[in-house]
Order: sequence, then structure tokens, then C-alpha cells
Amino acid sequence: MALKTLSAKAAAALDKELMSTGAFSIDQLMELAGLSVSQAVYRVHPIEKGKRVLVAVGPGNNGGDGLVAARHLRHYGYQPSVYYPKRPKNDLYQRLAKQLEDLNIPFVDDFPTALQSTDHIVDAIFGFSFSGEVREPFPAVIQAMSETKLTVTSVDAPSSWDIEDGPPKSGVGSDFHPSVLVSLTAPKPLVKHFRGRHFVGGRFVAPEIARKYDFEVPEYEGIDQVVEIGPGGQKL
Amino acid sequence: MALKTLSAKAAAALDKELMSTGAFSIDQLMELAGLSVSQAVYRVHPIEKGKRVLVAVGPGNNGGDGLVAARHLRHYGYQPSVYYPKRPKNDLYQRLAKQLEDLNIPFVDDFPTALQSTDHIVDAIFGFSFSGEVREPFPAVIQAMSETKLTVTSVDAPSSWDIEDGPPKSGVGSDFHPSVLVSLTAPKPLVKHFRGRHFVGGRFVAPEIARKYDFEVPEYEGIDQVVEIGPGGQKL
Repeated sequence: MALKTLSAKAAAALDKELMSTGAFSIDQLMELAGLSVSQAVYRVHPIEKGKRVLVAVGPGNNGGDGLVAARHLRHYGYQPSVYYPKRPKNDLYQRLAKQLEDLNIPFVDDFPTALQSTDHIVDAIFGFSFSGEVREPFPAVIQAMSETKLTVTSVDAPSSWDIEDGPPKSGVGSDFHPSVLVSLTAPKPLVKHFRGRHFVGGRFVAPEIARKYDFEVPEYEGIDQVVEIGPGGQKL
Repeated sequence: MALKTLSAKAAAALDKELMSTGAFSIDQLMELAGLSVSQAVYRVHPIEKGKRVLVAVGPGNNGGDGLVAARHLRHYGYQPSVYYPKRPKNDLYQRLAKQLEDLNIPFVDDFPTALQSTDHIVDAIFGFSFSGEVREPFPAVIQAMSETKLTVTSVDAPSSWDIEDGPPKSGVGSDFHPSVLVSLTAPKPLVKHFRGRHFVGGRFVAPEIARKYDFEVPEYEGIDQVVEIGPGGQKL
């Protein structure tokens, strides 16, 4: 039996509730989400497979999770580099980027070129709030991630996929099938189209909140911040 | 050779720098510090040894780390309870306490009684900014922690100890020797008087900041947020 999924609308309402009645700050939630992503990368791409990790960062919260993951990966001994073409003025994202600069993590301008000299890719471009068209400069980035033979780990959603319906029927992203997905708090409906290794992260949801939003908190092991489940959300 | 220690003054300056030029928010740092503490507890007191963990929480940042640790311990499957007699109006601490209430973590009023029905104690009363006298109601708490046969894990400093000189020569705390200490970012000078299991946590310091404050970032393993070192700070 598969874990229940969380629609885009429910995921947005859950985030709002965690930060209001749940009393979490976005700094806290993003720290724990990004930590989850870094642990999934460590699991699927141990450091012996190659230290270089290219993190593609979008303009919203999904991108923020990617910035946090890049920092933790650096502390684990990886050599992350970050592609962050659209930097919002938002104070939190600016601070997360500064934390990376202080670790001498390079920011790269040309994604397809940077992809030629990395060992792993993290796709933190768009998350559950994405819908509609992929805007510039991201079509070429998603195209490059569709064509690469490298392992791509997507954060919460393969970027360009519709949260309910999965990959677009044509155009940018229609051929994008990342090898790894880290669903945050709960899988989204798009996982029915996903075929790779699938993790759930974000170990901060109280059971009552999960009940209210009608999803299950998976059984994490020990102190892990991620748990591996089946591609479509099945328990392993 | 022992890791270099960080004086109370240097630790305060480091915290200030991390939150100004370092661009960290206190939410982030406290989340990672509390996570470190929870991982050390998991290491020294695996859940099979008994699920009940009593967390003694002081009025400042050390207490905040304890609140975060209690939340993570709950998610790991422990049954924490929290003694939090002096609750400041500070928004962050109120939110961290609310997060525990939402997990149905009990807050207890009588520490010596609560201590009779727990398996492990976390001492998050005072940290590196403590000096002088132990104020009410904490003398009886420290006395109870001095007398118990249970394992006590202290956060950053055994509460009541002078950060430079260690245990007070007489009175409250002079007999307090916790079994476990989690030094945050770097050991404090008091560790020369400590004889138990010693961990360093707080895996977020950039090497340049550590150089500036003349301490070493220890070699953490894998994705661990703590590393065990010798009682006085020796590398193991």
C-alpha cells in the first residue's frame, strides 16, 4: 500500500499551518528540509563516488532547501557548486547564500557547462508551488538534466512536472526523469509517474497535524532525517 | 593533543559573529545545536536503555537547545518530559515550547519527583554565558542531578560550573559531575575538570571563522552532527 499523497493545495496549507499554529519558523523548516536532502544525497551518492555536486537552485523555497543542502554537503566533505541565476531580495535566501560564500562554495553561471564537470546533480529549482510554464533561464537547465547520464536528485518534485499530473506531455521536462526524489513531509501525487529511488524527508511533523492533512508520517529509522520508500510511495 | 578551548568571552563573540557577518539566524543555530545534543543522547543512551528522558531547561539559549533536543528525541521514539520553570517571553522560546506541546510532550513542575521516573537526564539549564550564583529554583535541580545515579548529559557546560574554572569550590554544583558533555562548536576551558564522555556538536562553523577564533573544527564522520572526543578535548 502506498503512502497517501499531498496535493499542491494541501502542501501549501500544511506549510502555512506549520508556520502559524505549528509555531515553526521558515528558517527551522528549511534547515531540516535541506538537511534531509543532504542525507538522501549521502545515501545515493556516497562521497567515494565523486565529491562534486552541482546544485540547481530556483527562486523560491525549493531553492532555499537546495542552498541548505549544499551547506551540509560541504560539511560532509563534498565539493558542491551552486547555480543560482534568479536571486530574490528575500533576506532568508540572501543569508543562506552568504553562508555558502563563507564556505568558499563557488556559484556558477553556466549550468550546461558546469554539468560537464560534476559527479551528481541536485534539482532544487521548483517545488510543490510550481505550475504552468518553465520560465527563463530554466528550460535549458531542465533540458540538460533530462539528457545527462549523471544521477539527478530532485527536491520534492522533478522540476517542470505538474504536482498532480507529473511530466508535461510535450516540450521542456517531458523527458525529464530524475533518478532520485526526496519528497518533503509527504509524497505529492506526481509520484505515480516516478520510477527512481524515492525518499521522504522533513522529520518534524506532529502526528496530529499529519492526521488533519490525511497523510502518514513514515517510519524513520534511528536518527535518520530521511527514509527510503517505493517509487510511487509504497512502504519498502 | 587536546582541541583548543573557547573562553566564555570568545564563545559569546563567536555567536555574535555567526549571527551577523555569518548570516545565520538564531533559529538555525539553535536547531542544529539541539539536533547535535539529540544525536549525542542517542549515542550514549540508545532507546533500548529506556525511553524516558527528562530535559531540564534554563531560561536562556542553553535552554533553547534543550527544547530543540527534546523535539528530536520525541521523533526518534523517546518519551521526553520537560522541566521549564522560568519561561521568558521571547518569541523563539515560546515557539519551541509550543512545538513540544503539539507533540504531547509533558511539562513537569517538580524536578526531583520527575527524576524518580526517568531513564536519562539532559541538563540544558546554563551554558557559556553563566557566571556567579545559581538562582532559584535551580539549586535543588542541580543538587538532584549531583546525587542521581542516572546518566546526565550536559549541554555545553555542566550547569553551575564556571566556564573557565569548572566546578564551584563549595555549595551547589561542587559535587555535580555529569557523565556526558556536549560542547557546542568547541570545548570550553572547564573541560579540564570533566571526566565523562565528551562530544562536540554544532557542525556549521566555516574553517575561516574557526581560524579567526583560534579553535579547530573536529573531524566529524559521515553525516554525524556530533563527534566524540576525549574528556578534556583530546582527539580519540
